[in-house]
Amino acid sequence: MECMERLKQQMDFIIEVDKVKNIFRQTYLADGKRKENDAEHSWHLALMAVLLKEYSNQDVDLAKVIPMVLIHDLVEIDAGDTYAYDDAGADTKNEREKKAAERVFGLLPGDQGQEFKALWEEFEAYETPEAKFARMLDNSQPLFLNDASGGKSWKEHQVKKSQIYKRNSKTGEGSREIWEYMQTLVEKHVQLGNIIDDMTE
Amino acid sequence: MECMERLKQQMDFIIEVDKVKNIFRQTYLADGKRKENDAEHSWHLALMAVLLKEYSNQDVDLAKVIPMVLIHDLVEIDAGDTYAYDDAGADTKNEREKKAAERVFGLLPGDQGQEFKALWEEFEAYETPEAKFARMLDNSQPLFLNDASGGKSWKEHQVKKSQIYKRNSKTGEGSREIWEYMQTLVEKHVQLGNIIDDMTE
Repeated sequence: MECMERLKQQMDFIIEVDKVKNIFRQTYLADGKRKENDAEHSWHLALMAVLLKEYSNQDVDLAKVIPMVLIHDLVEIDAGDTYAYDDAGADTKNEREKKAAERVFGLLPGDQGQEFKALWEEFEAYETPEAKFARMLDNSQPLFLNDASGGKSWKEHQVKKSQIYKRNSKTGEGSREIWEYMQTLVEKHVQLGNIIDDMTE
Repeated sequence: MECMERLKQQMDFIIEVDKVKNIFRQTYLADGKRKENDAEHSWHLALMAVLLKEYSNQDVDLAKVIPMVLIHDLVEIDAGDTYAYDDAGADTKNEREKKAAERVFGLLPGDQGQEFKALWEEFEAYETPEAKFARMLDNSQPLFLNDASGGKSWKEHQVKKSQIYKRNSKTGEGSREIWEYMQTLVEKHVQLGNIIDDMTE
């Protein structure tokens, strides 16, 4: 009976998290035709974690990074997606997301719920090598898609170069090489007029 | 220069695989409102791999299972999705998918391309503990979603109980417990009239 109760909790969680497939982000898919949702984004990050591990500044444990990126956006089921450059939304983001973490991870059996909540908190705290690598992935993937779609989301939101640099102030702590590559893409889209250059004097 | 070439190949792959976000399956999301795509499906399997590892008949290495489920549908970029109960499509599926694997994994640097291709072949061969566990996830996830959506896809395709049992003939080799649970769901939907009962004499 205890076993069935455990499986039932896991199943409830598995069905609950299906909702992230309907939480849409501001980033367009590479083909520019529609925006990406959280499940697609998280899948992409997990795959990138495998492929780009060699660029991490510090050695990272994928057994920790991958679950971390798979679950990092589950709190948005309750808290919604806050756009990277939405300063007003950012003020209340932390509190909304903490409440969401309690409820969503609370659906799981105690041990698994605690494990996932701890992983999410580690991601948010941005301190361990795994969190820094995961955050680098989370910041670079939309930039790669934006590049592929011709800067569509940047143009739509009139994004400034300084906003991108502010958001990525710690991205180089995850991977110097990927952050360098990202900067070449930003420069390219500044030249193309897709990103507003507010950083040259 | 060699490094930049390697990163370029990885980036080309990362953008190419974005296409699976537009490959739609026959399964509806839990809310029944639209069908699921391959990226969402693969994200769900990876998360389930973490959560349901304890039900695997044999001990499995998640460092192998997770990349396996993340990439198992990439061949559909060229080969398209073949519905589980499409017998005509199944005849040509293997050949179409092999060609696709050559091209898609061929975009990567040699070592990573070979690693991913080997993982995909292992999944297809259905022999190792990791492949059996991954295939159990791949077969059970649409069943869980179908249950959540009130059997919508089963009704739409007039699926017969024997078809489900045929497709799942080896699912119990991945996890006896999950396959038992799946059978209770099948029975429930037979009772509800969502699955055609062609197995009672």
